Parts: sequence; C-alpha cells; structure tokens
Amino acid sequence: MLESTEVEYITKLVISAMNDAKDAKKMAVPVGVSARHIHLKQEDVEKLFGPGYQLTKKKELMGGQWAANEQCTIVGLKLRAIENVRILGPVRKASQVEISATDARTLGVNAPLRQSGDLKGSAPIALVGPKGAIYLEEGCIVAARHIHMTPADAAATGLKDGDMVSVRVENERGASLDQVKIRVDESFSLEMHIDTDEANACQIRQGDVAYIV
Amino acid sequence: MLESTEVEYITKLVISAMNDAKDAKKMAVPVGVSARHIHLKQEDVEKLFGPGYQLTKKKELMGGQWAANEQCTIVGLKLRAIENVRILGPVRKASQVEISATDARTLGVNAPLRQSGDLKGSAPIALVGPKGAIYLEEGCIVAARHIHMTPADAAATGLKDGDMVSVRVENERGASLDQVKIRVDESFSLEMHIDTDEANACQIRQGDVAYIV
Repeated sequence: MLESTEVEYITKLVISAMNDAKDAKKMAVPVGVSARHIHLKQEDVEKLFGPGYQLTKKKELMGGQWAANEQCTIVGLKLRAIENVRILGPVRKASQVEISATDARTLGVNAPLRQSGDLKGSAPIALVGPKGAIYLEEGCIVAARHIHMTPADAAATGLKDGDMVSVRVENERGASLDQVKIRVDESFSLEMHIDTDEANACQIRQGDVAYIV
Repeated sequence: MLESTEVEYITKLVISAMNDAKDAKKMAVPVGVSARHIHLKQEDVEKLFGPGYQLTKKKELMGGQWAANEQCTIVGLKLRAIENVRILGPVRKASQVEISATDARTLGVNAPLRQSGDLKGSAPIALVGPKGAIYLEEGCIVAARHIHMTPADAAATGLKDGDMVSVRVENERGASLDQVKIRVDESFSLEMHIDTDEANACQIRQGDVAYIV
C-alpha cells in the first residue's frame, strides 16, 4: 500500500504531465521532398552557360523560388559524376550544391550536414555546364531537415525561428526524425523539407503529412 | 481539488506505467548496413555463370552467410541498370534481389517493403551475368528493417520472434525507426539490419549502436 504522501506526490506529477501534454500542440505539416539541386550566383551562371546568360523558369516552387530549365553535371573528388542536376532560381549571393548522403557516397564527396547558406568549410565540388566548368572550393552540403513556417504558424504552435523539434510520420516504415530546425519567415508557407534519403528511408512521398511531436 | 476515487484511479495508472517502464529494457544493438545484394538458387547461378558453376567466398558475414566474389548487373522495367551488385552465398531455395527505395526509383521498379524470403507478388527484375541473363517474375524487394538476436538475447529483453519494436539512434541527424521486426535464431548474432537509405537518412555507420526503446 502507498503512503498518503506518496499518493499526493504522484498525483502532482500526473497533473503536471497532463498539463504539459495539453501544451504540446500536435501540428500537422505537409512534407516537401528536395531532390539534389544547385543554387548559383550570377557570375557562375555566366561561367557555365555563357556571358550574359539568365536562368529561365520551368516551375514555381515555395517562397519565391523556382526550378530552372537549366541543369548541370556535378563531379566529385573521385571524378565520379552525377548528370542532369536541376538548378533553382533566382540567383543567390553564393553558389551552393545540395546533395543527399547517398549522392555524397556516389561522388566521393565528404559533404557536411548543414542548413542552406551555411557553407563555410563545406565540401569542394566541380560543376560542368554547356559553356564552361567551375570548381567550388566550398559549397557542397547535405541539407539538414527543417520546417518553413509563417510567423502566424509559429505563434499557433508556440515555436520560434531556430527552435529544434522532432517530427513523426506514421506509415508502413514509420519513424520519428529529430533535429528538425524551425525557420520562420513571412514569405514561407508551412512545409517540412527533407531530402530523398530521408523520404526513401521513411517512405514519405511529396505532400504526405508529418506531425510535430 | 480531485475526488479520492480520481486519485485512486490515477495512482493505479501511474503504478502500472512505472511497472511497464521497468520491464522495457533499453537494449543496445549494433547496426549492420546492408547494401543492395542478390541471393540466388543454384539453378540461377548456373544460368548466369555457366553450367556447374559454384559461387566463391570473398568475405564471411553473419549467420553463416558470406559475400561472394561474383556480381551481377540488375535491370528494371525502364531498362535502367545498376552494375556490380554483390551476390551473397550460400545459395538459397529462391532467388531474391534486395535493393533500396532509392535504387527502386533509379531502376523504375515498384519493389515492395518485405522481410527477406517473403517474395509472393514482389517486383520483377532482370539479372545479367557473364554467361547469361535471367528474368525473375518476382523476387525484387526493399528489405524491411529487422533485428537478429539469439534466444538468450530475446530472453534478456522479454522479446520474442516476430515482435515489432522501435529503435532510437542518437547523432547529428537523430531518429527513431519504428516497425523493426525481431527475428530470433540460434545462428544469429545480435545485429540490427537496415538498408543504405535508412543509414544515410539517419547518419548511421556500420557498427554504430541503436537502442531498442
């Protein structure tokens, strides 16, 4: 039999746990699967496609980004290549190649896991276009999983830019992914971004829903 | 203020939860990463490598299995090929090709998620060897994650053959993988088997440790 002080203590713990559970809002987030892709600065566009060349829009994506008609071949240190890698527009301040860990192995590139734009000390990679080739001393990364949301979404979930959360998917494979970074901006629509390894390992298809836990 | 009947009910729930928690032993399991591979029946070995041909051993694996020196090229319905796919010995009763979901996409094969040996209605695939080619009407699968353990391991964890568990890995990417099947046999050594997509998505390397949760 339990002492009454134990009962009281346990009851307090339970009430506290129930309140915590109420605070944790289980938010549904649509998932976007990012295939390997390239961001370029205008100078590099011209080196690869010719002087004065402008990327052309194929398909609108989220947050003002778009898939370009243009593609490149990327080549790693072991001289292995992956062909037809899609370029995304508009041009950026720095060129960046985002590949999966599977691609990194194929290419023989030691690409670190990074949030987009965090390129310092990332892996070197060569890009070949129809009018030229460039060698990036750094710029090749495996993109770290993240969730884009508006300030309103953030307010609704009690999350803020830079927070790390875990996300659950329920399907035949079933998994929880940790270390998912929250990124908040007015231009974003609510979407979790994962790469093709994560999508394949967790049997997630474009547009499936995951839950912040 | 809570009624005393509520306190009693909550207390019972808590005691039950505490007992459950005591039973759930957090067991550390080394992880083996399975690259795409092929199992063959002797008849198919001979079709691919010539009459009377015997697979030759390159490297011992777990549970009496070994990597053979022999490799094949596999070709999917879209006529896309993956070269140099390792064959594992010894020969089996049925030929089977285990690929990742990334490979399935590359090949254009609709390979189902299955435990090894469960081939009914699985995907068709062509195999090409130095002396011939075969077309399997079924036999191509994406291997479902599982844990091999001895009866002693099973007894220690309170698990039995066929149980499904979740497994946690803690690292820069961090994840929990659900739907992990327990397979118990005297010939097994304790090891969790995942494929290259799962390893890459969760940043797991051969020999890393995961925890049954």
